[in-house]
Amino acid sequence: MDIALLGGTGDIGEGLALRWADDTNHTVIVGSREADKAAAKAEEYEAELDSRGQEVDIAGLANAEAAAQADVVVTAVPAYHLTDTVEAVADELGDAILVSPAVGMKRDEDGFHYNRPGVGSVTQLAAKAAPEGTPVVGAFHNLAAGRLADLEADLDWDTIVVGDDRDAKATVSELAEGIEGLRALDGGPLANAAEVEGLTPLLINVARHNDGLHDLGVQFR
Amino acid sequence: MDIALLGGTGDIGEGLALRWADDTNHTVIVGSREADKAAAKAEEYEAELDSRGQEVDIAGLANAEAAAQADVVVTAVPAYHLTDTVEAVADELGDAILVSPAVGMKRDEDGFHYNRPGVGSVTQLAAKAAPEGTPVVGAFHNLAAGRLADLEADLDWDTIVVGDDRDAKATVSELAEGIEGLRALDGGPLANAAEVEGLTPLLINVARHNDGLHDLGVQFR
Repeated sequence: MDIALLGGTGDIGEGLALRWADDTNHTVIVGSREADKAAAKAEEYEAELDSRGQEVDIAGLANAEAAAQADVVVTAVPAYHLTDTVEAVADELGDAILVSPAVGMKRDEDGFHYNRPGVGSVTQLAAKAAPEGTPVVGAFHNLAAGRLADLEADLDWDTIVVGDDRDAKATVSELAEGIEGLRALDGGPLANAAEVEGLTPLLINVARHNDGLHDLGVQFR
Repeated sequence: MDIALLGGTGDIGEGLALRWADDTNHTVIVGSREADKAAAKAEEYEAELDSRGQEVDIAGLANAEAAAQADVVVTAVPAYHLTDTVEAVADELGDAILVSPAVGMKRDEDGFHYNRPGVGSVTQLAAKAAPEGTPVVGAFHNLAAGRLADLEADLDWDTIVVGDDRDAKATVSELAEGIEGLRALDGGPLANAAEVEGLTPLLINVARHNDGLHDLGVQFR
């Protein structure tokens, strides 16, 4: 499968790109608003994988071109860039599945808090910006980027997948489970995304307040 | 330590009562709005523990009397009874620590959703209703009642403890870790309670949508 990571130069994009390239045979395409930046990062990822004995080709393209080539398009961008990013690639999506991992948070003196958009969740923002007919799936919201991008680190985490299109959800769950140490769990329809996104500030708060815990994910058990 | 479980006849109260009585030497007092009901439940818990070879005395009292005898008072009541329950025992709290495990949820056709009160969280509702000077701690929000009350079941869960009083939080964390298979993690100040409470509807949604998973808790890792 061909996976485009829009904003694939950022931290969560880096982790997903490296893991998919390392653990699966999927084709990874790094997207960025600037094609040059995407290409440079793609080379960097290739070099890192090469140093681990993995010879893979990773393309780096402008977001729209990356999206045009992909079966699955992951918007690995901050929540405040999500709508713009989806709108900028809308004409190129074709039959692709759109996957949103973004979470909106605000920080105050007490800690991190979930910043729920009026539409219900950040994942639903992506769905609102997507062309009609494009299946939108929420996944990868609760993965600590640092650990995800460290290929020496074991994950042993769950990721919750939400969406209204059963087939699209199954495809994304399979992609998720292609990453070693990641279990995909069904969180139900897109309308349940807020509860998934709200877990991310909790992970950060727990990591900040407990010695020895950092870069946290969760396991449901 | 003497622990009063207000609403200790309900499902989460039952689980905490049985676990503390089974796993620790703390004195457990079951509270209810009706003393008779509390006494009957306390006898039921005693009988269950007795059948496991544990001879323990569990008192059953009206909530206010239960609170008056306790070092730690857990309001194991639904969110919509929380303020009333705290106000009804306010004069009896003395130096006790008040612990709130309640979560507000609403359910629609998609699933369960966090129902955040205007004051920020249900735990902060408890704090608002508590007398000045009573330390309020949030804990035990994310424990599936069914598994908690089944003494044959292993937990292997984390519980997040939030609060503004460091000593009270340490006491409650210690109580939590007295329960076998439960790890207490610091979630920071009381203002971080919403993110903890919001995890509960997610646990329910995940349990509903994944075969073989039920009565879920989480482990941060």
